[in-house]
Amino acid sequence: MKLDYTNMLSTALDGRGIREADIDGLAARFGEVHEDVERRRASGEYGFFGLPYERDTIAEIRKFAEGVGQSFDTIVVLGIGGSALGTLALQQALKPPHWNELTDEQRDYFPRLYVLDNIDPTTIGPFLDRIDLSRTLFNVVSKSGATAETMAQYLIVRERLQQQFDTDGLRGHLLFTTDPQKGVLREIATAENIASLPVPPNVGGRFSVLSAVGLLPAALIGIDVDRLLAGAAAMDERCRNGDLRNNPAGMFAALQFLAHTRAGANIHVMMPYSDRLYLTADWFRQLWAESLGKRKSRDGRDVFTGPTPVKALGATDQHSQVQLYIEGPFDKTIAFLTPAAVGLDVPIPAIHSELPSVSYLGGHTLGELIDAERIATADALARSGRMNMTIELPRIDEHAIGQLMMMLEIATVYAGGFYDVDPLDQPGVELAKQLTYGLMGRAGYAAPEITTASRRILE
Amino acid sequence: MKLDYTNMLSTALDGRGIREADIDGLAARFGEVHEDVERRRASGEYGFFGLPYERDTIAEIRKFAEGVGQSFDTIVVLGIGGSALGTLALQQALKPPHWNELTDEQRDYFPRLYVLDNIDPTTIGPFLDRIDLSRTLFNVVSKSGATAETMAQYLIVRERLQQQFDTDGLRGHLLFTTDPQKGVLREIATAENIASLPVPPNVGGRFSVLSAVGLLPAALIGIDVDRLLAGAAAMDERCRNGDLRNNPAGMFAALQFLAHTRAGANIHVMMPYSDRLYLTADWFRQLWAESLGKRKSRDGRDVFTGPTPVKALGATDQHSQVQLYIEGPFDKTIAFLTPAAVGLDVPIPAIHSELPSVSYLGGHTLGELIDAERIATADALARSGRMNMTIELPRIDEHAIGQLMMMLEIATVYAGGFYDVDPLDQPGVELAKQLTYGLMGRAGYAAPEITTASRRILE
Repeated sequence: MKLDYTNMLSTALDGRGIREADIDGLAARFGEVHEDVERRRASGEYGFFGLPYERDTIAEIRKFAEGVGQSFDTIVVLGIGGSALGTLALQQALKPPHWNELTDEQRDYFPRLYVLDNIDPTTIGPFLDRIDLSRTLFNVVSKSGATAETMAQYLIVRERLQQQFDTDGLRGHLLFTTDPQKGVLREIATAENIASLPVPPNVGGRFSVLSAVGLLPAALIGIDVDRLLAGAAAMDERCRNGDLRNNPAGMFAALQFLAHTRAGANIHVMMPYSDRLYLTADWFRQLWAESLGKRKSRDGRDVFTGPTPVKALGATDQHSQVQLYIEGPFDKTIAFLTPAAVGLDVPIPAIHSELPSVSYLGGHTLGELIDAERIATADALARSGRMNMTIELPRIDEHAIGQLMMMLEIATVYAGGFYDVDPLDQPGVELAKQLTYGLMGRAGYAAPEITTASRRILE
Repeated sequence: MKLDYTNMLSTALDGRGIREADIDGLAARFGEVHEDVERRRASGEYGFFGLPYERDTIAEIRKFAEGVGQSFDTIVVLGIGGSALGTLALQQALKPPHWNELTDEQRDYFPRLYVLDNIDPTTIGPFLDRIDLSRTLFNVVSKSGATAETMAQYLIVRERLQQQFDTDGLRGHLLFTTDPQKGVLREIATAENIASLPVPPNVGGRFSVLSAVGLLPAALIGIDVDRLLAGAAAMDERCRNGDLRNNPAGMFAALQFLAHTRAGANIHVMMPYSDRLYLTADWFRQLWAESLGKRKSRDGRDVFTGPTPVKALGATDQHSQVQLYIEGPFDKTIAFLTPAAVGLDVPIPAIHSELPSVSYLGGHTLGELIDAERIATADALARSGRMNMTIELPRIDEHAIGQLMMMLEIATVYAGGFYDVDPLDQPGVELAKQLTYGLMGRAGYAAPEITTASRRILE
C-alpha cells in the first residue's frame, strides 16, 4: 500500500495546503501519541489491535462457516452501524457485483447475503415475504444486545420463524454475535441454546469488522478471512513504528489533522475510483465521524471538534461533486483510493472511428479510462490549490483490504490523539436513544415535549 | 408537503441558529431573486420549469413505453451524473426494494432496470456477460453526446450487439436520449435511424430528471409519469409566489443560505428517514453542489463559494454520523425527509415480554419506531443547538416525489440568486476533462506532466 501525499503540500498547491515543516512539527507530538496508543493497546483498552491474532475465534468462525453454515442459501444479517457497515464493505470489495442476483453457479454455491441495516417497514416487510425461511440463517449482530433497531428486527423475524418451525428448528436459523457475557442476546442464547459468537468486550462496534461481526458473514460467502487478517497483521506490524514519516496510519491521520486545523478543511472526502471500494468509504465514514466528532476533550474541556467525513465515488461523482471540490471553498481534503491493478479489464472497441469526439477512446480499456480520469482529477484539484492524496492498494483482494481497514482503524486512534479526544466513546447518541425510549413508552423514560403551537411550519 | 423549520431558529436553539429577523431581512432580496428567476424562466434560460408541461415529449415517451418498450425484460441506462441520478432516485422511491431481484410476477411484468453510472470494468464486464442481450434495451443518455464514460460504455455495448445482431436487429436494442439537434449521438441516431428522445437544449443534466432522461426509464418500469409531472406542476404553481414566507422552495433556499452565511454551516446534510428516499438525497447532492459550488460570482469576482451537500440515512446513520452531528462543530444543517404515512407497515410482536430492554418494542410497528427515532433525533439535535428542519411528504408516491424534486430544483436556482452565482454552469470540470483527453491520447490535448521524482510517497 502506498500513500502519495504530494498534493497535500504547499509546494504542489501554490502556497495553499500543508507545509513540510507542519508535518515535522507534528512528528514529536506523534511520538507521544504513538506511545500513548501502544500503552492503551497493552492495557487492553484498544482491543481491535488484537483481532488479527484471535486464533480461537477464527477457528470457531471457520468451523461454523465450513460446517453448519453450508446448509443455507441466504444469510441475513440483522445489524446496524458497526454491526453492518464492515460486512457490507467486505462483501462489495471481495465478491462480484450484484452478488444477490447471481445464480447459485455464478456464486460458486456460496449463499446470498443481505444486511438489514435499517428499520424501514417498506423494505423489511416485502423482503421477509419473499425469502425462503427454511434456507435462511439470521445472524443477529449487536454487541450490547439492546440495539432497538436490531432487536425490533429480531422480534419480527423470530415470530415468523416460530410460525414455521418448532423450538429445535427455530434455533437452527439463528446465530447471535454479541458480548460473551452480558446483554439480552447472550441471555437468550444461553437460555435457549442458540449458536453464538463473541464480540470481545474491549472492541467497540465501529472497530469490530475483523471480529466475528464481519468475519462470520464474510467466511460464509467465501471470503478468505485468513488472508484478510494476514493483511491486517502486516499493517499492524508496519504501524508499530513511532516515526511519523514511516507510519502510514500516522501520516494519514497527521495530514488530515493538519489540513483541518491549519488549512481549514473541516470536510474529509474519501473518493475511491472503484465500485468495489465505495462501501469501504462508507464504513470509514462511521469510524472517522463517531470517533472524532466530540464535544469534550480528554480532560473535559468543551472543544466541539471533529471533521465531517464524506463518501464520494470516482469517476461517477466527477459529474456531481467535483465542480464544487475544484471551485468551491478551500474547506476539504480528498483522499482517493485506487487499486494499482484493476484486475479484470474491459477493452473499448474502435467503433465510430470517423468521429473525433469518441474515436480517441477506442483501443484503450475501461481500466485505463478510469485511471486517466483519476489522475486528471487529482492534478486538476492540485492546480486549483485543493489538497488531495492517493492511497494505492496493490490490488483489491483480501490481503489489501485487511491492510487498508487496519490502517484506517489505527489512523483513527492516532487522530483521536491529535484531536485530544477519546476515539472510543459516543456519548452524544445517548439523548436521542432515551427520547426514543420515551416516545415508545418504555418505563422510566420521558418523551420529548413538542408543543405544536410554537412550531414554525410552512404547509 | 410541509416544511417545519422550528429547529433552524435561535428560539429553539438557545440562541444559536437563524433569527426570524434574518429571514425577514432576506425577504426583500428574495423578491428580487424571485423576479430574476421568473425573468430567466420567461426568457427560456431556465428550461426545467417547462418540463411538466411538455405534452408532446410526454406523449412520445408513453407511446414508446407502452409500445416497443413492452418487448424488453431488462432496461440498461448508460449514463452518468445528471443522466443517472434522477432515474436511480425515481426507481428507488417508487418501485419496491430489490427491484432487479424480483420475479417477473413480483415486478408485474415490468422490466428490470440497471443504471451503469460508472466505468469500473469489474462491474461492467461481469454485468454484460450475464444479461440476455436479446431481451435488453440500452438507453444511452448524454445530452452532449460526448460524455467520455457514457460513450465508452456505448462502444462496448455496441460491439456486443453487433456480434449478435444485424444492423436492423442492433437498432432495436438502442434508444438515445440526447440533444434534439447537436452532438455525436444525434448524428448516429439520424444516420442509422436509431430511436431517440430529446433533452431540451435549455435543460442542463442536473435539472433533467423530469425530461425524457428520467421519464422514459420511469415509464418503462411502470411509474406513473403523469402523476409525477402533476406533482411537479403543483409545486411550480406554489412557487410562483414572490412572498418568501409562503414559498417552500424560497424558504428552503433561504434557511440553508442563512445557516451557511450567518451561522457557519458549510455542510448541508439531507437525511431521509426512509430507504425509499436515500437516492433522492444523492440526486439532490449533485443539484446543490454543482449549481452552487462556484469560483466566480455572476459579475466575475472570485468568491470560491458553495455549501457541501451530504447524504445520510435515518435511522441507519444514527449509528454512524449522529454522534458527530450532535457533539461536533456547529458547521452543519440537517434536513430530514419523511413521509407522513409510511404505507405498508410491519408490526413488532410482543415476544420476550419478560425482558425490559426489548419488551417496550412489542405492540408497536417499525413505522412507529422509525418515526420515534426521527423525532427524538431532531429534538436531541435542537437541544444541542444544532440546526435542523423537516420536510414532510404526505406519502411516497409519484405526486409527492414530483413535488419534492421540483421544490428542490427551484430552491437551487433561488439559492443561486442568494449566493449570486450562475446555478446552470460547471466551468470547474473542464480542466480535468481536458487532462483526461490528454492522457487518453486525444489529438490536440496535453496530458498532465507528473514527474515522479518530485512526488512524496510513503510506500
